[in-house]
Amino acid sequence: MAQSIYDRWDFFEGYSQLGRSVEGLAGAAEWPALRSMLPDMRGLRVVDLGCGFGWFSRWARERGAAQVLGLDVSERMLARARETTFDEAITYEKSDLEMLSLSPAQFDVAYSSLALHYVEDVARLFAEVHSALVPGGRFVFSTEHPIYMAPTKPGWSVDTEGRRTWPIDSYLVEGRRTTDWLARDVVKYHRTIGTTLNALVQCGFSIKQVEEFRPTAQQIADRPELAQELDRPTFLLVSTGR
Amino acid sequence: MAQSIYDRWDFFEGYSQLGRSVEGLAGAAEWPALRSMLPDMRGLRVVDLGCGFGWFSRWARERGAAQVLGLDVSERMLARARETTFDEAITYEKSDLEMLSLSPAQFDVAYSSLALHYVEDVARLFAEVHSALVPGGRFVFSTEHPIYMAPTKPGWSVDTEGRRTWPIDSYLVEGRRTTDWLARDVVKYHRTIGTTLNALVQCGFSIKQVEEFRPTAQQIADRPELAQELDRPTFLLVSTGR
Repeated sequence: MAQSIYDRWDFFEGYSQLGRSVEGLAGAAEWPALRSMLPDMRGLRVVDLGCGFGWFSRWARERGAAQVLGLDVSERMLARARETTFDEAITYEKSDLEMLSLSPAQFDVAYSSLALHYVEDVARLFAEVHSALVPGGRFVFSTEHPIYMAPTKPGWSVDTEGRRTWPIDSYLVEGRRTTDWLARDVVKYHRTIGTTLNALVQCGFSIKQVEEFRPTAQQIADRPELAQELDRPTFLLVSTGR
Repeated sequence: MAQSIYDRWDFFEGYSQLGRSVEGLAGAAEWPALRSMLPDMRGLRVVDLGCGFGWFSRWARERGAAQVLGLDVSERMLARARETTFDEAITYEKSDLEMLSLSPAQFDVAYSSLALHYVEDVARLFAEVHSALVPGGRFVFSTEHPIYMAPTKPGWSVDTEGRRTWPIDSYLVEGRRTTDWLARDVVKYHRTIGTTLNALVQCGFSIKQVEEFRPTAQQIADRPELAQELDRPTFLLVSTGR
């Protein structure tokens, strides 16, 4: 994440219009599933990796977290997070997850929402997170699903019989992907589910739950555009324990 | 697996022609990766779930396993396994994995190659395997990858620019899939990676390794048709511990 895509005006403006930016956690379809993986926040020390506008950091405090450290590489995101946070137990700091450095055993929960696919060296990051957690600590995160990430030209296709498909190629060719989401030439790093999970296990994490996010029937009734998620997942949610 | 597809003459004849049937383990591209997940076999008690022609059961004994129980639902597969096995420490028994029942704590290793995608109730099976293993035992298996399984019409497509793709739909719609592989109307059960792993964790297994099988450069040089595997995986390999 040497590039902070969120500091590019075109990406930032586009991102700021998304439901999840305007409505916060309630605007993110995968949030209820991710939330269900989290422990009771009361009294816990929490680090929010890629905190963005600070929605989760504030939520954790509202649910009783003792203190929250929100980290992000984007100055613009951090500025808005600080403007909208009035809580001395929440601290925001600039940090590039690619070079994250945390003191050992100072957090009970590490959380990350949709930031890890911008990180090239995820094994290094996982080792750092593992070290920063106390024994029994939890690391819960979402990332873009590799089925969503893999294609050299991501996009829907409709076949001659009207079947909507998501054509995959290069699924097992991991590494850099350049896409035009919100802005041109956004760089992300594609990894298989196996690679992500093995990197966690190799650091000492135990895998507790893996969800390839599927919207509920109620969510689809409320937002019919979510039905296409049933054809291919966008989000991978993982819960691990130290 | 109420239906034993392997006992249908058309499927059996087709299956018998495959490289993995003629050459055994050496004919299966994913075997070296799966083998690397297995412990040293010496002195271990092994159960082979869906043993087919008995290739793995014999391999395990050659590597020093104390005893091997090969289970399969197909009478024809078992008959050929028995015809080609001359070892009193290997026993073959008819068993439907859908209704598997094993005595507790009698095996050190449970192994299964490409059988689980025929099983509808995999949570029940995993619980039975967990119970049949001693503490510290290992359960290592391969199954068809959900990307391979998911489409309502599985098959390659070539787009207008010559890009080979594997169009996915219904990835998050789990359950029955009927395909025409080797024979018409072969029934399999599609599950996401998350569903498989969560079922294992819920039984008490710890996830040790997850591989979405990628052929090596040498394998592709030797068998150029394997290059298409890089576009979409066929096999999911999982190593767990009790």
